[in-house]
Amino acid sequence: MIDTDALVAIAQRVQVACIDSGLTLATAESCTGGLIGHLLTEIAGSSGYYAGGAITYSDALKRRLLDVPDATLQAHGAVSAQTAVAMADGVRRTFGTDLSVAATGIAGPAGGSAGKPVGLTYVAVADASGQDVRRFLWGGDRSENKQASAAAALELLLDRLRIAR
Amino acid sequence: MIDTDALVAIAQRVQVACIDSGLTLATAESCTGGLIGHLLTEIAGSSGYYAGGAITYSDALKRRLLDVPDATLQAHGAVSAQTAVAMADGVRRTFGTDLSVAATGIAGPAGGSAGKPVGLTYVAVADASGQDVRRFLWGGDRSENKQASAAAALELLLDRLRIAR
Repeated sequence: MIDTDALVAIAQRVQVACIDSGLTLATAESCTGGLIGHLLTEIAGSSGYYAGGAITYSDALKRRLLDVPDATLQAHGAVSAQTAVAMADGVRRTFGTDLSVAATGIAGPAGGSAGKPVGLTYVAVADASGQDVRRFLWGGDRSENKQASAAAALELLLDRLRIAR
Repeated sequence: MIDTDALVAIAQRVQVACIDSGLTLATAESCTGGLIGHLLTEIAGSSGYYAGGAITYSDALKRRLLDVPDATLQAHGAVSAQTAVAMADGVRRTFGTDLSVAATGIAGPAGGSAGKPVGLTYVAVADASGQDVRRFLWGGDRSENKQASAAAALELLLDRLRIAR
């Protein structure tokens, strides 16, 4: 169980790093459903670097709003490294920001399969120099899996910001 | 102070009402920053009716993603009944859903003015038959104001669903 204060503390570090670097940020959320944006906007002054985000539950919206290629969704599925990267790339373009982060996964309790079990999650980050993606398999309930995915997305972003500076 | 369990309970009632009515939903969030989407997706099965949403902090994104008219933003500002209604209309069109809900306000601590103090918030709902909008003035801190706005948006949605049936 992750407590919310710990998540907000990571969001605070993201804000400091983005503002120090003069970088703007957008989010693309599937399994986290808006939690990443909610955490970022808990911090006063978040409008100084956070442009906003897209919550895209359906494949149709991943295509339409984030320009995720239909071929990517067909070949690899919505929960895949390739789709996570395409979501991050797409929201960065659509929102016109320097940086972006994306999360796609199966929060549960339904939606799992043998190849893609409940808890499987990909988070991706994108900036002008490229993308990075990480795979996780969480073992919590729906709410815990969402929190773990949001924390992983924010940590990936922090690591990217450390390299960028 | 509103506790999170109470907010998730309202989201649960929204889900039951939407699924019973066969209606799909999209969200447009400014001051709540993703909290409404997060609450809706805490409930298992939310993908059965919730398409997703847009988190649009900046005026530019309210125009580009939600088709909020520039004239509306110029004449009334981002925190206004007119912009709340335009955001709800816009996200409903963009996401192709039956229903939508929008929130725009000043969560604080900064951003307030004499005419538009911290805590001022508008929530709007839209469906095929029209729109409805409500005005609030919250007195909490940033996090409490976000929670109060999300609760008000979900309650407005519930009232609209009661009328629709």
